Amino acid sequence: TTRYSITLLPGDGIGPEVISVAKTVLKLAGSLEGIEFSFQQMPMGGAALDLTGVPLPEETLSAAQRADAILLGAIGGYKWDKNEKHLKPETGLLQLREGLKVFANLRPATVLPQLVDSSTLKKDVAEGVDLMVVRELTGGIYFGKPRGFGTNEKGEDIGFNTEVYATHEIDRIARIAFEIARKRRGQLCSVDKANVLEASMFWRKRVTAIASEYPDVELSHMYVDNAAMQLVRYPKQFDTIVTNNIFGDILSDEASMITGSIGMLPSASLGESGPGLFEPIHGSAPDIAGQDKANPLATILSAAMLLKYGLGEANAAKRIENAVLDTLNRGFRTGDIYSAGNKLVGCKEMGEEVLKSV
Amino acid sequence: TTRYSITLLPGDGIGPEVISVAKTVLKLAGSLEGIEFSFQQMPMGGAALDLTGVPLPEETLSAAQRADAILLGAIGGYKWDKNEKHLKPETGLLQLREGLKVFANLRPATVLPQLVDSSTLKKDVAEGVDLMVVRELTGGIYFGKPRGFGTNEKGEDIGFNTEVYATHEIDRIARIAFEIARKRRGQLCSVDKANVLEASMFWRKRVTAIASEYPDVELSHMYVDNAAMQLVRYPKQFDTIVTNNIFGDILSDEASMITGSIGMLPSASLGESGPGLFEPIHGSAPDIAGQDKANPLATILSAAMLLKYGLGEANAAKRIENAVLDTLNRGFRTGDIYSAGNKLVGCKEMGEEVLKSV
Ligand SMILES: CC(C)[C@H](C(=O)O)[C@@H](O)C(=O)O
Ligand SMILES: CC(C)[C@H](C(=O)O)[C@@H](O)C(=O)O
Repeated sequence: TTRYSITLLPGDGIGPEVISVAKTVLKLAGSLEGIEFSFQQMPMGGAALDLTGVPLPEETLSAAQRADAILLGAIGGYKWDKNEKHLKPETGLLQLREGLKVFANLRPATVLPQLVDSSTLKKDVAEGVDLMVVRELTGGIYFGKPRGFGTNEKGEDIGFNTEVYATHEIDRIARIAFEIARKRRGQLCSVDKANVLEASMFWRKRVTAIASEYPDVELSHMYVDNAAMQLVRYPKQFDTIVTNNIFGDILSDEASMITGSIGMLPSASLGESGPGLFEPIHGSAPDIAGQDKANPLATILSAAMLLKYGLGEANAAKRIENAVLDTLNRGFRTGDIYSAGNKLVGCKEMGEEVLKSV
Repeated sequence: TTRYSITLLPGDGIGPEVISVAKTVLKLAGSLEGIEFSFQQMPMGGAALDLTGVPLPEETLSAAQRADAILLGAIGGYKWDKNEKHLKPETGLLQLREGLKVFANLRPATVLPQLVDSSTLKKDVAEGVDLMVVRELTGGIYFGKPRGFGTNEKGEDIGFNTEVYATHEIDRIARIAFEIARKRRGQLCSVDKANVLEASMFWRKRVTAIASEYPDVELSHMYVDNAAMQLVRYPKQFDTIVTNNIFGDILSDEASMITGSIGMLPSASLGESGPGLFEPIHGSAPDIAGQDKANPLATILSAAMLLKYGLGEANAAKRIENAVLDTLNRGFRTGDIYSAGNKLVGCKEMGEEVLKSV
């Protein structure tokens, strides 16, 4: 048997519920492929704030750094919304990404035939959408310096941030994106605002340079405002998208909403080496927390990404993906993806049905 | 009679066609309300590059500054795409905005009942959408300094920009947005990324401070990634949106595509005093330029915004708005908004039909 150690970060709101379900699925899929896991659960986000006073305790970060992979639930909630920046759950997440050096955020947006009606887009526009946003995650305006508050030359108060990218930051995310596009449909669209921003001109220049290493991938460029339109107009035109941290934040959320089923969408955050971070793209949904209503499928599919991208265990990953499809085909739906004629189930029951299909 | 001088900037691609049609409509609507115009046509964008070597000649800027209002067609085209930054048509547009100090960009996104089927959104999601994006237009990362190319402390090449907002920049755009919301449905949603960016935290603080001057307007805040989702999920929730330059660029384009009829959407850019700049939100569409296929309605509706917001001539503006609706009701459609059962017309004929209805 192969052994892996996994750090679980349930976090806040519905986080604990979906993590507990996903853990059982991960365990079973692993054991059927001769894989054993040791799990270590650590506090993070608002839960960590309440317990330790900081959103990412040192013990949590070092446990995560030592693990083979990390599965995160969700963080945040009204309770901590008014906190100062360094005491916000979100800050813990940014610190975790930085601490793990996971610079590549992979966010697939797929419209499953079973769920095409959940999209607010017309059926013929939504069906068949299958794209991947590769978002730079540890650079750009999220981390750029100088940043802060101050006064300008007129003595007026200002708030400011720096959007900055260096060669190696663009090169490495571009390579990951080209590799992914190569394994998909061979099309990479790099999104920037090179008609206005120097940071984007430099981004475009480096992505274009790296393209020569991938002659089999077709590279195109698109301005971010146009990309925001094209995702609504004709999302099927996209295969793989690569973009900076802030544009990726916006476009990947737009793309996921286009599928109409954000309760279904996983994500992976990967570094050069070291453990990857896997999490559903949905939030902590405090309004339904603790009511067994959450859709665990995004976290279960994040566990599949963990197996595939984090551990290289493609077979076990496939088991989970197939089990999710099979469970949908058998008509089980949580509230967020329910439609007439199907069987409405809660978080736990959905997990049990997936287990049956693994 | 009241007299106004208007600077026309036809620009590139379909710009000249739509401007020439909009001019006739503006003239007629004015004359019926006792208004006379003197028009001065000036080169701008690619047309100016070819003629004078720069995208915004000094004569064009100073003519625009002296006018009572400016009507712009569209700028840009493949021909100038590879130009260096200071020789791009887009740079001329940014210089024009800066030179006119038009810091407030008003971009309505309205789904007309006649055109609801043009949207890629399901009918029940699209119908009734009527929102206004108020975008800050002369600050933020578009103009912030320092900017450029350089090397970092490791000697690596970098590209960088500065997102920065000062008190007066936020206060004045917030006030415009509150005024607009007050005349609409009384709801203002300020969009930022205050969970990550200091510039956004400062933005949120100032917008909240200004809110006390407008107790009759309901203010809410939303993160930009969530706003990009909510525009797809349930666009009817929005009345007036206020946001920074780059988020406004992205979200207003997304909002306009949600209507499905960007050939219909006008925009206004206003300053503290001095002439406003009015233009359709669509681009120069070089692929159909000179073929009499362009939809002139966005430019005609921009002329209506010019009358209303630029000159305070609400009656003449209403004439144009009603004429456009009437023309649509009589079944006339350009190719971009055509659907079965209607009459397909070109740019000129559409203009003639609108004239009949003015
Ligand atoms: C919570 C927030 C800091 C975070 C981000 O902006 O990166 C979130 O929106 C995301 O996309 O994971
Ligand atoms: C052409 C470009 C510089 C411009 C912008 O980004 O402001 C355009 O996208 C717009 O929205 O008017």
